[in-house]
Parts: sequence; C-alpha cells; structure tokens
Amino acid sequence: MDRPHADLIRTARGMEPADVVYRNALIFDAFSCSWEAGDLAVKSGIIVGIGRSYRGVRERDLQGAYLVPGLIDAHVHIESSLLVPQEYARLVALHGTTTVIADPHEIANVCGADGIEYMLAGRSGVPVDILYMLPSCVPATPRDIGGATLDARALSGFVGREGILGLGEMMNVPGVLAGDPGILEKCALTRIRDGHAPLLSGTDLNAYILAGPDSDHECTTREEAEEKLRRGMYLFVREGSTEKNIAALVPAITPCNVSRCSFCTDDCHADLLAREGHIDRCIKKAVSCGLEPELAIRMATLSAAERFGLSDRGALAPGRRADFCIVDDPRTFTVKETFSRGKPVAEYAGQPAIPPLSSTLRCTTPTRDQIRLAGNGPARVIGLVPGQIITESLTFEINASALPDLRRDLLKVVVCNRYGRGLVGTGIVHGFGLAAGAIAASVSHDAHNIIAAGAGDDAILAAVDAVIRAGGGMAAVQGPEIMVLPLDCAGLMSTLPASGVVTKLDALRAATVKMGGIADPFMYLSFLALTVIPALRITDRGLFDSVAFRDVTVFC
Amino acid sequence: MDRPHADLIRTARGMEPADVVYRNALIFDAFSCSWEAGDLAVKSGIIVGIGRSYRGVRERDLQGAYLVPGLIDAHVHIESSLLVPQEYARLVALHGTTTVIADPHEIANVCGADGIEYMLAGRSGVPVDILYMLPSCVPATPRDIGGATLDARALSGFVGREGILGLGEMMNVPGVLAGDPGILEKCALTRIRDGHAPLLSGTDLNAYILAGPDSDHECTTREEAEEKLRRGMYLFVREGSTEKNIAALVPAITPCNVSRCSFCTDDCHADLLAREGHIDRCIKKAVSCGLEPELAIRMATLSAAERFGLSDRGALAPGRRADFCIVDDPRTFTVKETFSRGKPVAEYAGQPAIPPLSSTLRCTTPTRDQIRLAGNGPARVIGLVPGQIITESLTFEINASALPDLRRDLLKVVVCNRYGRGLVGTGIVHGFGLAAGAIAASVSHDAHNIIAAGAGDDAILAAVDAVIRAGGGMAAVQGPEIMVLPLDCAGLMSTLPASGVVTKLDALRAATVKMGGIADPFMYLSFLALTVIPALRITDRGLFDSVAFRDVTVFC
Repeated sequence: MDRPHADLIRTARGMEPADVVYRNALIFDAFSCSWEAGDLAVKSGIIVGIGRSYRGVRERDLQGAYLVPGLIDAHVHIESSLLVPQEYARLVALHGTTTVIADPHEIANVCGADGIEYMLAGRSGVPVDILYMLPSCVPATPRDIGGATLDARALSGFVGREGILGLGEMMNVPGVLAGDPGILEKCALTRIRDGHAPLLSGTDLNAYILAGPDSDHECTTREEAEEKLRRGMYLFVREGSTEKNIAALVPAITPCNVSRCSFCTDDCHADLLAREGHIDRCIKKAVSCGLEPELAIRMATLSAAERFGLSDRGALAPGRRADFCIVDDPRTFTVKETFSRGKPVAEYAGQPAIPPLSSTLRCTTPTRDQIRLAGNGPARVIGLVPGQIITESLTFEINASALPDLRRDLLKVVVCNRYGRGLVGTGIVHGFGLAAGAIAASVSHDAHNIIAAGAGDDAILAAVDAVIRAGGGMAAVQGPEIMVLPLDCAGLMSTLPASGVVTKLDALRAATVKMGGIADPFMYLSFLALTVIPALRITDRGLFDSVAFRDVTVFC
Repeated sequence: MDRPHADLIRTARGMEPADVVYRNALIFDAFSCSWEAGDLAVKSGIIVGIGRSYRGVRERDLQGAYLVPGLIDAHVHIESSLLVPQEYARLVALHGTTTVIADPHEIANVCGADGIEYMLAGRSGVPVDILYMLPSCVPATPRDIGGATLDARALSGFVGREGILGLGEMMNVPGVLAGDPGILEKCALTRIRDGHAPLLSGTDLNAYILAGPDSDHECTTREEAEEKLRRGMYLFVREGSTEKNIAALVPAITPCNVSRCSFCTDDCHADLLAREGHIDRCIKKAVSCGLEPELAIRMATLSAAERFGLSDRGALAPGRRADFCIVDDPRTFTVKETFSRGKPVAEYAGQPAIPPLSSTLRCTTPTRDQIRLAGNGPARVIGLVPGQIITESLTFEINASALPDLRRDLLKVVVCNRYGRGLVGTGIVHGFGLAAGAIAASVSHDAHNIIAAGAGDDAILAAVDAVIRAGGGMAAVQGPEIMVLPLDCAGLMSTLPASGVVTKLDALRAATVKMGGIADPFMYLSFLALTVIPALRITDRGLFDSVAFRDVTVFC
C-alpha cells in the first residue's frame, strides 16, 4: 500500500490550497446513485475533497455542469479497434473513459508473451489506465493452434506485474466442465477471473462458476442474465460493433443488483468509437432502453471498479483518482471534457510511439483448387445472426458447383492458416448479402488466420492476396478495385492515428456497400472462425460444430 | 488461489451425488435481493449448485423453509461478550452467524501481540470463521498507556497471516488529521482499513478518508451516515449492548447503496447475545424500523462479505462456503438451524479449550484519600446518553464533600491503573441512577484499567477490591453483598461456558437493579474511559475532554 501523503491530508482539510477546484458542479454520488451540488478539489491527480470551502491555485466555475467519475470498460480487446493501445486510449478518453480492463488475447494468439509485453508497453503516458487480464485461452481451444500456446506456467510470469489484474475470459467451457487440469491450474493463478459462457445454464453453469470464473459478458437474453446474476456472476452488459446486448439485458438490471452489473464493449472498430462513442454510448443506449441514468452511470463507474477491486477509482470521493468527465445531461450523456488523474486528456497527446510488432503472415494465396467445394445435397451453412456473434447452423440443399448462390445469399467463406502450416478451410455462409466482390482480413478470432468471404472464387483469392501483400490488413475487392486497410502491427492493428484508420474504414465500408453487403461485414467476418461461440464456425481445417465441439463436413 | 477440485465440478454438473441436498427451500438471492424456490446441493462444505436435478447421499426436505446465507458481523470486539472466542463462536453460531470480523484490540491493549496470538488460536475448530482486523490504536491515544504499545512494525508481523484481514478501526482521528507518520505507516500496512470517526464531517472527514480508513460504524444520525456513504465509506450499522443505531440509520439505507451497508455489533455482552441474538437481532430490528427484509439480509450477508473482499461467502451460490441458516420467515427472522461449511453448528461443540492468558492486574485497592475530590462550584460532569457510548460534558454546581448527590444522580467515578503505575483518577458522572452500592470492572476501554462508580466511597473501594481479588472481573457491591463475575482471561473474558457467564451476569444485573440503577450499567461503565469518543471521559489521570483532546480538572 502507498502511504498517504501528509500534504494531501492538509489540503483535504482545507489548510492548503488544492491544485484546482471545480466549482458549482452537480457531482455524481456513485454510492447512492444520486447527485450532490458542490465543488470538487483536486491535488496531485487525486480528489482531496468535495464541499463548499475549498480554495485552489486554479479555480473553475462549472456553472452547474454534471460531473461523473471516469468511465470504465469492464472487458475489451483493444486489438479489435484496429488501433494500437496509445491511439485507442486517446480516442476513448475523449468519450469519458479513463480505465479499460483489456484482454490482449488477439495479439497473444498471434505473438504469445511478446504480444502481451507489447500491450503492456502501450500503457505508459496515456490518459486511460489500461489494465490487463491475462489471456486464458491461447489458443481458444487445443485444436485452434495459432501463433502461440500460453499455458499456466507461461501466464504465471505475468501474475503480480503492474498492469495485470487477473485472468481473462475463460472461453474453454468444455475444458472447465471436464476439469481439465491445465485449465484449473490457470484458474488458480489469480483471484479475479473473468468468464465467457454464452448460453450456459443449469448444472453446467453451476459447475463453471464453481471452477472459478465469476463474470460473464456473453448474455443475450434477460433470462440468461438473471440466472447468471443469481448464481453469483458479475454481469458485463456488452455493446460492441457486432454484439449488441443492452436492449435485451436492461430489464434484468435493478437498483439491488446494479452493483454487480457493468458495461463492456468487447470488440469495437475505431470508426464506431470515433463516431458513436465508447462507454458513453452504452450509457446513452441503456437510458434509451429505459434504465435510470443514475443506474447506468453506476454500472459504468463504481460497479466496474468494485468488480475488479479498484478501490482507488469509480467514484468522486476523497483519496480516489481524479478521473472524471463533464457531461451535458445524465440522459443525453454527451461528454464535454475528460480528466484523467486531474489532467485534461488532450494534454496527454504526443507520447512517443512504440515500434509495432512485425507482421507474422507466413502464407501464400491459396490456389483455386484449395478452396474448391464438391458435393450435392443437404449442406451445413453458417447463418449470420444480425447484431450477434453467435451463428446459426443452417441446412440448405446445395450444388457446390453452383456457388455463389446470390439468390439465396449463399457465399463461400475461406480460412487460410497464416502461420506457415498451409491449411485452407472452406465453408458456406448465409447472411453477408454480397452481390459481387469479396472481403478478407487477417483479423479472425482467435487464431487470426486470414478469413475471406465473397461472391466468387476469383474475388475471394484476390482479397486474400491483397491482405497478404499488405503484410496483414482488411481488404475489399470488386473486379479491379482493391481497397486495403493495412494492419502493420501483428496483422491486427494499424499504427495510423485513429482518424487515418477511420478514413480507411470508411473507404472499406463504401466498397462493401457497393457490393451490396450488410453493414459492418468485417466485424461479422472476423468472428466466423471463433470456435468457442455457438453454433457453426469455419477454421483452417473446415467447418466446426461448436456445440458438439467437433469438425464437421459441409455436406451432411 | 486454491485450485478448484475436479470432483466438485462433476458434482456441480450432477454427474456425482452431493453430500447433502436440501430440497424445497426458498433460497435467498443476495445478488438481487429476492427469493428462489429450489434445492441446494452441498459437497465437502461447499455449495456446488442450486437447481432441481441434484441427488445427494443424504437428502432433506425443507418444506418451503427460508434459506439465507450465514450471517456476518462486520465489526466486533469478541472480548466485550466476556466470552473467550470458542464460546463466543458457539453462541453466535446458534443465531445464524458464520463469520465475524473481529478487532482484538481489548486484549491487545492488555497483553499486546500475545493477546492477538491468543485470539488467533481461538479460531480453530469453531463453527464461525473468526477473521481479525489488526488493532490500529494500541494504546487508543499516546496518553492512554495500557499493557502494550503496538506500532506499525509490531503489527506488520501479522500482515498476511491466515485469519488476518486488514487494519482495525483507526480511532486516532486527530492523529490521522495531523498526518502523524506512525499512523500513516499503519494505514499503509493493508488494503482494507476500518475507520472510526464519530461525528466527523466536512473537510476533516474528507481528509480522514483520504488517509485510508474507508468504513465507519460510529454513525448516530441519518445525516452523518449519508455524508459518510457519499464520501465513499462503507457504513456498518451498529446495534450493540449500549450502542444502538439501527433505528436512526435505517432511513439512510436504499436499494442503491445497500451494497455498501452492513451490520455490526461492536460490543455485546453474552446475555444479550444469548437472549436476543446477534446479527439476526439486527435484521429483526431493522425490519421493525421499516427496512425491507431482503435489504436487511443483503446487508448481513453479501454486503459484508464484499466489503472485506470475501468472495467465497455471503451468498448461496456455486463455489461458495456452505454457510447458511434456516429461518422461519424473513420478517420475524428466527434462526432455526445454522450450518457452517455444510455442517450443523452444534456438531462443532466440544473443541479443546485454550489455556487463558493469565491476569495482568498489578495494583492494590486505592485508599480513601486517593479517590477524594475537593472543591466547590461549577464542575464538569460526565453525562451518560441512553443507548449511546458518546457522553455529554455537563456542568453542575457541586460541593465535593456532598457527593454522592443522589437527588441529582451525581456519583463518583474512579479509574485505577491496573499495570502497576499507581495512578488513580476520579470524576463525577450523571446518569447511572444508583441509589446505593457501587459497581466496578476490569473492563474499561481501551486500557482496561479498573473502573468503578457508586453511591459512596466505601462501596466504590469495596467493588474495586472485589475485582482485584478475583484477578479481574465485574463486581456489584451493596453493603455486605458482593457479587462478582470473574474474568480469568486477561481480566476481560471468562473461560466459563456462555450459560455460566449469563447466569453470573443475571446475578450482577439483579444486584444493580436492587441498587436502583439503569439497565446494563456495566456496559456504560466500560466505555467511560474511552478517550476517542466524545465528549467527556475519565482516565487514570482524571477527567479528559475528548473533543479538545486534553486532560481537564473536575472543577472549572
């Protein structure tokens, strides 16, 4: 424990001036979900007191503005923003975020411990406190071998390091339920263990919780959320680029259980963050779905802090970090300014960049033969579910030689191993709605092989080729038109500033709109290889039934 | 972290039978403050699951009875019960308690580190998990030297020991506010630090919280509780033998802040515990004061567990300790049975006793001269406040030679140093109502010198003499009738079983009733020397103004 400073105590008593006093604010009381009119005094990045009698070296009249604690994202993969940590922090800080609990499992799947070190290096000098949960499932399952395998021993070296909070989402539900010794060993590493158990219920849910993980961010229905809360799980209500659960879960949140509920974004592209916001967007959305603003703000602040044992933040109270933001109104929740450790977040700009981890793509573009499908009859088809990362396992009567079948929206989806193993898996997907062209990306959870889908083999191969040539990235190809966002950091993140990434994403979106596709096709695409999410997925081995947990053929 | 057991996981999944299944219960959901009809399955002292499909080696039909988590006392001095820890645990377990957070500062003031070791030894084999907070103020203030001084270095040896949770109530508020380095060093020892700040408010409260302590159990009004909650303190609503704050504080508790509120008893004599109960009594009282039963139970269970970071208890959920009790009804809250780690608490009876710490009384009975008061005119008088441990500083026109003044209820109160220093302090007290005789005790917070009050010097001296002859104890003397409860463990606790102590307390009470005194005079008496509580106290040096924090004379 740090020893409290005597000079801060004198300042709190009003015997010495604070650095800054913010006068005439409506200050959020996260403990009782109410508002207090008063002044907030800050010294050395710490809130020293709230009251009416403080003097400051600087004083600022907030004229009745609403002051809320800095917002906290309870679970996020920074890599999914396509931004490096420093750029990510700068962007979300503008939206009121001052702490994120991040799981660096994307880069860990590609680069192993080096990836975690890279993300830890990105903590310094930024306006957001980035705290990491150790990736518990690298690879996601024993079959999905990517660039690294992190066992309990490999993770244990990170336990206790500054910036490491606990064990990240334990996605290997079957492994937990089977009592896999390697998994139980990981669960024993840390006291705080995040879960990931979509649709798990009943006795299996009990067993999963008993084994250690005690949070969940995968609930998609009120009933699922209520059961998980009742069994002792912390509920992280997720609203990401693809996974949007706030509307469904708000009815489960009450004043009595709000202390056990937080918000998380899990996966958000930079453009969504830049345009719609981060946790501020979650608050807005929850309020629009009928949640009292005070409960929503409690979730985004104190509840998240308490879940992670962060007693130094989450509320505007003496001794806590001076992380806060000024908002226009609790209901509309537009963040006007954000302060991190007492300093406006804009003043953190201009930290030196950390060299990106070099790309690790070790593959060539597949041949037409490698992505050929043969067969005729009832076939398994991955069905996209709008607004969700779960998929449906559909069955269609299909003649493989007639693909793509644009009338029924049946396209090929291809995964190419990026680690030099030469594997290529091909399946069929329904729901992208592409009428022409193809998209491809080196972001495909969690092994981050190259994944592509499109209306025709030539376009698919051209898109994969574009990604490989860029050393990793996202590509949209339609005839001669090739649009690429290079992801020069491990094939996952761009070292461009957020604005540059947003511009490229806009161009990619324009390209996919021209192809006739759904909104955000890359986000859906990037999850199609994630074998820990129901129901049917595609890997570099081919189709995978993630309910039965086994590889399956395309034709039944 | 313990590694979760694979066999428990199998049992939770329903693949193997549980040890016991409690069928047809109404199970309290502490997370959402609601009830769930179901069965509770227990194995190896752990709750493995709740549901309808569990089988057990043994099964018991609870026929719709209410099942609530084992109750938690957030702050208690076990010594105040006059029982040794094992006896205390047996008694409170019958009332549904399965965890107490105890501050052994009474015995630490008398015996130092040996006292803490004695209390730690009392943890084994009992049905209640006794967890200790390290006494932060031994002595209570630098002037109140008792049997030991525990500085940060002495305490540091206990940090991290099994059964040690954090730093106990930091009562030296002036020391904290002055930034006393020794006190700040203690605050830096542990992450969890209990506070004690009666009536503290405004900037000084801010400064106190900033320095580290973040709970308070001394609130006596709703406004005080609300301010402390707002500034980030956990509120422990206290209902002890003397200090009864539930009625005043219930209006401050809401569904939004209930997660920050717990119950504590602080100081309860064995007879109150035996007759009226422990935390069950607090729940009953709170409900009778208008609190929803579900909020009261939440306070007594999950809220207390969360405050102390005890994620292994506080709720009926998979993986948690099978600590629970069966109650008749949430409103009347009569505990029918208690289970600790899955075992009925009665089955814990008969653990081997630990030899008591020998008495440390090193004093002789004072002479009449030593307790003489001289003077005439306006005098400072300690005024008892019914139901509170705070006192008032009263002023009466007094002729010392005319004491006791039974008409105006003005009695002498005497403190004799028990540590061989030969000091005797004498003052005047209003409020005991004794018409004859005297009472004396070797329990007087926190130095535990011998304290006595009575209607006449002879009776006072006889009562002090009786305590010394017993090697410590409580005595009531009226003429030739001398009634004593010996406290053979450090002059603070009796090694008698709870029933024996209750019988003796009854006899003492009967004796004081005959003297015409108020109810529970010993509890009031035992706090009159506590210099950290407003407003006027008595020490072995004489009167002490605990607001101005200085010794004062009796006559103004």
